[in-house]
Amino acid sequence: MKTLVVGANGQIGKHLVTFIQDNDQLEAKAMIRKKEQATYFVERNAETAIVDLEEDIDSIAKAAEDVDAVVFTAGSGPKTGKDKTIMVDLDGAVKTIEAAKKAGVKRFIMISSFDTRREAIQEAPSSFAPYVAAKHYADEWLRATDLDYTIIHPGGLTNEEGTGKIDAGVDVARGQISREDVAKVIEACLEDKNTIGKEFQIVNGSQPIKEAIQEL
Amino acid sequence: MKTLVVGANGQIGKHLVTFIQDNDQLEAKAMIRKKEQATYFVERNAETAIVDLEEDIDSIAKAAEDVDAVVFTAGSGPKTGKDKTIMVDLDGAVKTIEAAKKAGVKRFIMISSFDTRREAIQEAPSSFAPYVAAKHYADEWLRATDLDYTIIHPGGLTNEEGTGKIDAGVDVARGQISREDVAKVIEACLEDKNTIGKEFQIVNGSQPIKEAIQEL
Repeated sequence: MKTLVVGANGQIGKHLVTFIQDNDQLEAKAMIRKKEQATYFVERNAETAIVDLEEDIDSIAKAAEDVDAVVFTAGSGPKTGKDKTIMVDLDGAVKTIEAAKKAGVKRFIMISSFDTRREAIQEAPSSFAPYVAAKHYADEWLRATDLDYTIIHPGGLTNEEGTGKIDAGVDVARGQISREDVAKVIEACLEDKNTIGKEFQIVNGSQPIKEAIQEL
Repeated sequence: MKTLVVGANGQIGKHLVTFIQDNDQLEAKAMIRKKEQATYFVERNAETAIVDLEEDIDSIAKAAEDVDAVVFTAGSGPKTGKDKTIMVDLDGAVKTIEAAKKAGVKRFIMISSFDTRREAIQEAPSSFAPYVAAKHYADEWLRATDLDYTIIHPGGLTNEEGTGKIDAGVDVARGQISREDVAKVIEACLEDKNTIGKEFQIVNGSQPIKEAIQEL
């Protein structure tokens, strides 16, 4: 199964491409913004597609033409300019969803934020609220499609080494999770059709990742 | 017919409340952010409701409880911080739409931007694109409801005196329109059920406003 990783050059994206390329059942196509970012992926024998998320739907759809799944793990992050929040976290995500539809790719995995419900927008500190709002509307857009989607809501992201263990569920206690483990969860979702139509929160915890995903 | 004007203290909003209060068939309830903004509306015998658009849906719904129509003419404008763009132009609009549904108010008039299609986001200068994107998603949200909506897409806004004459249509040549005339168009829409379910662009032009609206 070939997967277009949108946001491949991000930290989660890089881990994910490595895991996918090490998995005999999977194959990655890394969507990156600039040619100069290709080295990491070429070294892992991964195909690349050079598309800026601010380009139009057709450009993204072209990159998705020959894949079986799309993972959206791009993110401006909560600390970039707020103009990027709406253009990348919301509009970039929606364009990627529409591109998947256009390219006929049914499987779509969205890396969201821990809590993107309406209440979470209201409760967020004002500096973080625009990011939560952007993720809220992107998730809503995806839910309204008939794509085979999975929405992953990770806790606070860290650069710690992966532990391979998580707590996963519709409503888990707020906590942290390493980016490496998030990438492992995405890999597990790509391999487990049981996750289609589901969305869940993840934090580092006590259950092996594959097992936690299977039991969702 | 009583209308909640959301964004009443803006320039279009102030004109609109004045026109409504001068119209025997209509009555305005001005939604404003601060008590200090009430004077203008009290002088025109208009009721006020003090609600910040960053509050939750329930607060807005409460203001909408006793009205027959809601007009959304609030706007951060293209020049405010981009965090306000997503929080006011998108999330504030969506909360107002959800509040109207919650309060059982079917009639909803949205003041959008001249062109909020997908292509317009792509073509906009990067400083303006976040605003266009916010208005795009707000309009999309409204279209997906079963409210009796009208979406008005005004050209470049000016503070010129109203001319009373416009060109209106699904696709008119880009141009300018005075805020006073936009308010007159909103008033005409409130009086004309023919505009329910329609959306159209307006610029200053050659046809009397009521006539242009009737012929849509």
